[in-house]
Formats: sequence, C-alpha cells, structure tokens
Amino acid sequence: MAQKPSIPKGTRDFGPIEMARRNYIFDTIRSVFRLFGYAPIETPSMENLSTLMGKYGDEGDKLLFKILNSGDYLRGVDPTLLADGGDALHLTPKIAEKGLRYDLTVPFARFVVQHRNELQMPFKRFQIQPVWRADRPQKGRYREFYQCDADVVGSDSLINEIELLQLIDEVFRRLSVRIIIKLNNRKVLSGIAEIIGQPEKITDITVAIDKIDKIGLDAVKAELLERGIPAESIERLSPIITMTGSTEQRLESLAQALAQSPTGMKGIEELREVINATEALGLVAGLELDVSLARGLNYYTGTIIEVKSRDVEIGSITGGGRYDNLTGVFGMPGLSGVGISFGADRIYDVLNALDLYPKEATTGTQVMFTNFGATEAAASMKMLKQMRDAGIRGEIYPDSAKMKKQMSRADALAIPYVAIVGENELAQGKLMLKNMATGEQQLLSVSEAIDAIKA
Amino acid sequence: MAQKPSIPKGTRDFGPIEMARRNYIFDTIRSVFRLFGYAPIETPSMENLSTLMGKYGDEGDKLLFKILNSGDYLRGVDPTLLADGGDALHLTPKIAEKGLRYDLTVPFARFVVQHRNELQMPFKRFQIQPVWRADRPQKGRYREFYQCDADVVGSDSLINEIELLQLIDEVFRRLSVRIIIKLNNRKVLSGIAEIIGQPEKITDITVAIDKIDKIGLDAVKAELLERGIPAESIERLSPIITMTGSTEQRLESLAQALAQSPTGMKGIEELREVINATEALGLVAGLELDVSLARGLNYYTGTIIEVKSRDVEIGSITGGGRYDNLTGVFGMPGLSGVGISFGADRIYDVLNALDLYPKEATTGTQVMFTNFGATEAAASMKMLKQMRDAGIRGEIYPDSAKMKKQMSRADALAIPYVAIVGENELAQGKLMLKNMATGEQQLLSVSEAIDAIKA
Repeated sequence: MAQKPSIPKGTRDFGPIEMARRNYIFDTIRSVFRLFGYAPIETPSMENLSTLMGKYGDEGDKLLFKILNSGDYLRGVDPTLLADGGDALHLTPKIAEKGLRYDLTVPFARFVVQHRNELQMPFKRFQIQPVWRADRPQKGRYREFYQCDADVVGSDSLINEIELLQLIDEVFRRLSVRIIIKLNNRKVLSGIAEIIGQPEKITDITVAIDKIDKIGLDAVKAELLERGIPAESIERLSPIITMTGSTEQRLESLAQALAQSPTGMKGIEELREVINATEALGLVAGLELDVSLARGLNYYTGTIIEVKSRDVEIGSITGGGRYDNLTGVFGMPGLSGVGISFGADRIYDVLNALDLYPKEATTGTQVMFTNFGATEAAASMKMLKQMRDAGIRGEIYPDSAKMKKQMSRADALAIPYVAIVGENELAQGKLMLKNMATGEQQLLSVSEAIDAIKA
Repeated sequence: MAQKPSIPKGTRDFGPIEMARRNYIFDTIRSVFRLFGYAPIETPSMENLSTLMGKYGDEGDKLLFKILNSGDYLRGVDPTLLADGGDALHLTPKIAEKGLRYDLTVPFARFVVQHRNELQMPFKRFQIQPVWRADRPQKGRYREFYQCDADVVGSDSLINEIELLQLIDEVFRRLSVRIIIKLNNRKVLSGIAEIIGQPEKITDITVAIDKIDKIGLDAVKAELLERGIPAESIERLSPIITMTGSTEQRLESLAQALAQSPTGMKGIEELREVINATEALGLVAGLELDVSLARGLNYYTGTIIEVKSRDVEIGSITGGGRYDNLTGVFGMPGLSGVGISFGADRIYDVLNALDLYPKEATTGTQVMFTNFGATEAAASMKMLKQMRDAGIRGEIYPDSAKMKKQMSRADALAIPYVAIVGENELAQGKLMLKNMATGEQQLLSVSEAIDAIKA
C-alpha cells in the first residue's frame, strides 16, 4: 500500500464546514466592497519575477516562490554557475523567470500601469485572491493565504478615506464583530519628528513608538536613546506619545505640540476632517486616534488605518492607508491612492472564537430524501425536483441502505430535514418530513414541505 | 522610465467586465452544485510533486509547473547532476519538491485518501479552482484556467448519474444555453470490442471511432486496419457505429448486436435506466446516445457524458463519467464514483458569442452621486448611506471635478443612474435622479429614488 499522501507544509485543505465559514466571510466582504462601488479584478497567480523582485526588500525576495522554467532549463546557463556545487543565488534568475504573487498590491500596481489606457480614473478595484510566501510555517501563519484588498487610485480626496472607514464599519457590523478603528496620519509622525528636532530619524522614532503598547514608555525611551536620539528630544516626545483624553482632546493637544510644523498641522487637519465627517455619517465602531500607529511607514503618506477586535486578542484584523506613489516603480509616477486589506485568516479566527456564524450562512444541504428502493426513489426524485425548483438544496440517499445508516448521514452532515417516502406516503402522494433538531415528524404534501423547510 | 510591465504568456488579467461575466457563470454553477447537495472543498494550489507525478502520463509530467525549493536548493545535490552543463531531467526532483496542481481530480483523490476517516460516504463535493499547465499557449488554451468539478464517490447507484444529468440540465437552463447531452457507457464499448472479436484492442477501436464525426467512416476503417484490426472485424463494427434512428431505436439495435456480450448488455441496461429515469423527471436538454463517445477511456468504467452547445461550434463544454478506482494510486482501492467538469472558459466563449448575460448580473455600481463641493458632498454622502442601507450599490465622485468629467465616468462604467445634489436639491432635501439610458431626470426624495433604482 502506498504511503498516505500529504500536502506541503504551511498549506491547508478546506472541507465543507471550513468552506462555508470562509465563504460567509468572503461573501460579506465582497458584498460590501460592491456596495461601495468597488469593482472586482483578478490577476494571474504567477507574475514575471522581474515584476516581483526588489519590491518587498531582500527578505521578501527570499520568500517568493519561484517557478522552474519548463523544458531543459539548464540549456545555455553559464557553466560557472554550476561549478563547485553550484551557485544557487545567481543560478535562480537563469532557471526561474516566474514567481507566485506575494501580495495583491504589486500585481495591482502592475495591472494599473499595464492597462492605464483602459482604466477610468479614479479606479476603484477590489481583489480577493490567494498569495504565497515561503515563510517558516507556524500557528496562524501559512504559505498560502487569501488577501482581500480594496483600493481607489487617482484621487487625493479625503472622501475616499471616509468611505473606506464606512466600508470597514459595515463589514464588521454585518459580521457582528465589535471593533475599534485606530487612525493616524503619516504627516503627524513627520511633524513629531520635526518638532523634536530629528526629522531625519522618523523611521527610528516610529519603529520605537510603535512598540509602546507592548514594551511600555521606559523601554521605548531606552530604545530611542540606543538609536541615537538625544535625551532632550526624547523628553519632548514623551508627552506627545502618552497623551490621554478623548480623540478630540488629544487632537487639540497634538495641535498645540505641533503648531510649529506645517506638515504636522496638515496631518491633524486631515485627521479632523476624516474623523468628523465619518462620525457625522454614523458609525457602529469607535474611531480612535493612535499616534503610535505606523504600519508600513515607508509606504503610507497620509491616513493610516488599523482595526482591532474588541473581544479577541489577535492583533490587527484589517489595515490600510494612503500612499502617494503606487506605480512609480513601474514607470508611472505620482499616482496617489488609498486602500485597505482585510485579514481573512484572523477574521476567521475571531469569528470562530466568538462563534459568530449565522446558521443560515453555514447550512449546506437543507433536506435529504431517504431511499427505500426503486419505486420509492423514483417518486422521491420527482418530489426532490419540485423542492429544488423552489430553491431548496436537497439530495437523495443514492442507495437503499439500512434506515439507520441513511439517517446517520443526515445527522453527520447536519442536514436539518429528512424527507421519508415509504409505502404509505407513496400511496398518499405525500412525504414524512422529519425535523432533525426536534425529532418532530409531519405527513405533508410537497408544497407544504417546501413551506415548512423555508420557514 | 521603466519598461511597461507584462504578465507571463498564457496567463490573463480579468478586469471588472470580464469578472462580472465570469462570476455570473461561476455563481450559476456553484448555486446548482449546492442545489444538488454537493458541498464545496478547496485544496492547496501547490501539491507535493510525489502526489502529482506519474498521474498524467509522461507528457503531463512535463506540463507540471514545478516550484523551486527555498533557500540554498543546490546544497547536498549530487555534483554529477551539475557536471557537463547539468542534467535537468534528474536535477529537477532534487531542487523542486512541489508543483502547481494540474487538474482537480488528483488533488480530490489525495484529499479523499488523506481525510478518509472524516468523510461521510457517499461524499459529494464540488471544487471551483484554477489549475496550471505549462502547455504551449494558443487561442483558447491558457496556462492558468479554472475547472469546475462535482463528484460523488462511495456509491455505485445510477441515481448519481441521473442527478448529474439533471444538474447539467439545470446549469445550462439557467445560463440559457441550448445544449445536447451525449451519453455512452464504457461497458458498451467493451461489448463492441468483444463482439467483433477484438476485446484486447478496445483502446485502438475507441480511439479510432471517436474520430468518426471528424474524419468519416472510410478514414476510420483505414485507421482500424492500420492498427491491426482484421477487415472482417471492421465490417462487423461498421453497422454498429453508423446506426441511425432515435436513441430508443439505436439502443434496441445495439442490444441485438451485443446480445452475446454480457458486459455490453449490462452497459445497455445502464444506459436505458439512466436515460429513462432522467427523461421521466423532465429535461430541457436533449439526451443522445453516442456510441463513438470515449473521453478518457482508460479512466471511465461506466456512464460517459459529454455536453455540446447547439448554437456555437466549440467542442465539448462539459464532460464526465463513472470511474471505479479514483484513489487506488494512493493506496485506497475500489472507491467508485461519478463526476462532471464544466469547462468555464468555453462556456464563457459560448455566452459571449450569443450575448447571453442578463443585465442585472453584469451591472456593477447602480448609482453615482456627483460632487459639487464640500457642502453638497456631505449631504450626498448622507443620502448615499441611506441608499446603501437599502442594498443599492453606489459611489460618490470623490472630487468636485467638472460636471462633464463626472458624467463621463458614469457613462464609461455603465452606471445606470446618476444622483445630482446641487444647491436647489440641497435646499429641498432631495436629489435629481438621472436615468443614463433614457436621459430622463426626476426630482425625488431619497426613498423615492431608492424605489426608482430598485424598480
């Protein structure tokens, strides 16, 4: 007997129950994306490595899955690359031209540049597809996972930010997940760096203050000192990053602290506009200013958004922000946009932890007909067809197995109703409908049964 | 300026219009799969090459996309494999352990074996996912494309065949594609080979007669002669493969011709039962016996199914059949099943050729609010929120650009309604709703506008 087969580490099979749950999440996100006027696109799983390499840093380049060229891929390769055990690093680009996408952002940028003449700006797209990373697999980190991104490019208007915050709110309202939306603005971070006299140290400063929740103020101060920020600057920074009070009060304190930085003041103005307009439209979630929020600093240039679950400790479940130069690396500079990405795997974990799946979203087959032999089966199949024509998802047990075996299938698959057509029912042209949750049985006509199942 | 980026040959980007059309097809197939009690699964894009290799013949092995191992993949490789320009054929298994799936059947078989203890038999699953083949790209043939498969394993009952035929009929009824469903049975083909005295030549015989529609009887006869079938056998074969009349008449003639072959008679009995029961349930499509239908002969063991469009010449758009030994290669012998696969790309071509997309399935955003500046935009966003709460997909033009530019966006994106909130409308708390198809404008309250858009 052959060895039991397996799948590559870091990948997953999804059976019917996981699929129903995941689809509930994806369908919810997709519906809301569409509700807000975002249109779907899909890009190929494989991109040319020239598109992907150099976009995610050296570490990212290593984590790209690379696809071996077809045919005799060694033909024409410089023999020195194969000598002395081979030079994998320099051989790779010669034998692998394609790679699996690492995220949806770079393929989106490539898409925009490639199709620039066909696109209507502002271009609002969403994309829900898997991505692949050759990361070391661990709990909650997979080598194949889905991203759910929505971006609008070609518009500087803060209306886009406001709409994205509404969109986030609507997704989690539909999923019944209580969230807090944290906001910041890169210009505020720049302003802080300016004001404490360290504009060129903005990366060091934000990396350090990003950790304040985890390691506390003293450790952040120590780290800043280590990174070469003078003690005096750190003292000026402390009150800013430890501000308390309502978001409005903190914005006010921040405005006083950053009064001398036009960049910082612009960031505060943007935050105010976004927060006020979004709140005026009515949100379920709370909006919270978080000046320690940095997220991919080198990428974002304006609003920065991060979403956390109020009830499950799991880190960020959605994030995004505004960027100025999505497509510059592909020769199309100056395209501004703002986008968000839902973390489907973490949202799945949150819904599992809180058991938030509505019954109707995860019910597969609604009715199973039993099978007592050819005559009964033929009559059952006619009734089943009527039920399906009425939109009910149903099946018939294909063999006339023992009743107990048939019922145990309905049980195992959590099918809520079983329809029994035996000799008696057949004679009356009816069926016995068993509610599997209550055990209750009723002799019904097909149309009565349809009503009962739909009720 | 960087070179304009591109995608690997044989792959495709899908923009919003193609996505809407493709999703209409996938959603239709998915709904009908669920209506018939099939449950979704998904398997990883990459499988271990030990799972994939040797399952598709030598040619298939070459067409597998192989993924280069991560890190220093040459470490420990036998240096002789790198000597003298290298030995790609034998090097590959040392430097690539994973490959992209080539179809959904082998991953499904692997899934069934791996999860055998968790599965409820009969196991009815569907799977809609992309597959990859390093084929030479040409018109209509891609290196990444979707398959849409439904299979039931663990049951020999012909009810499964009958249900799959109903399922096929329902999918194409919903898509408004007129089809003919061709049926055959591998046992009939075996019976024919027996009756003409050439049971061991069944493959040669079926490969030849499979071509009768394309090359005609004389050419088929010549080919059979060439393949070593005696002239006498060929003469006995001719009347069988050129039978005319209704399906019932041809089954009758076939029964006379194959009377001496128990296997052949069993095949005829199965065909009769499947055809009669399916027709008794009422089909939109026609069922047609086609004894020249072979499709993957070495795989199928009973019913063979193929679907063609009545109105577009494009080959098979769906196919499938019964098999006896899906999982034997993974050490789990004797698992019988029957399955079908919808050819999404060809169905897409058929729908495009006949322009069969319903308007509501391909309408994205339903309403666009114009933008005349901050005050009007704020009021518009309130109205837009009400519309979205009522389930209408809408957007607001994010910038207060020239009216002409804003309207041209709605036009280009085929958004059916534009909502205009200017000074006058603002004063009245109303909006001007423009029907983009008729040019008609109406001053309406938000709730009136919601009714108008939904109507």
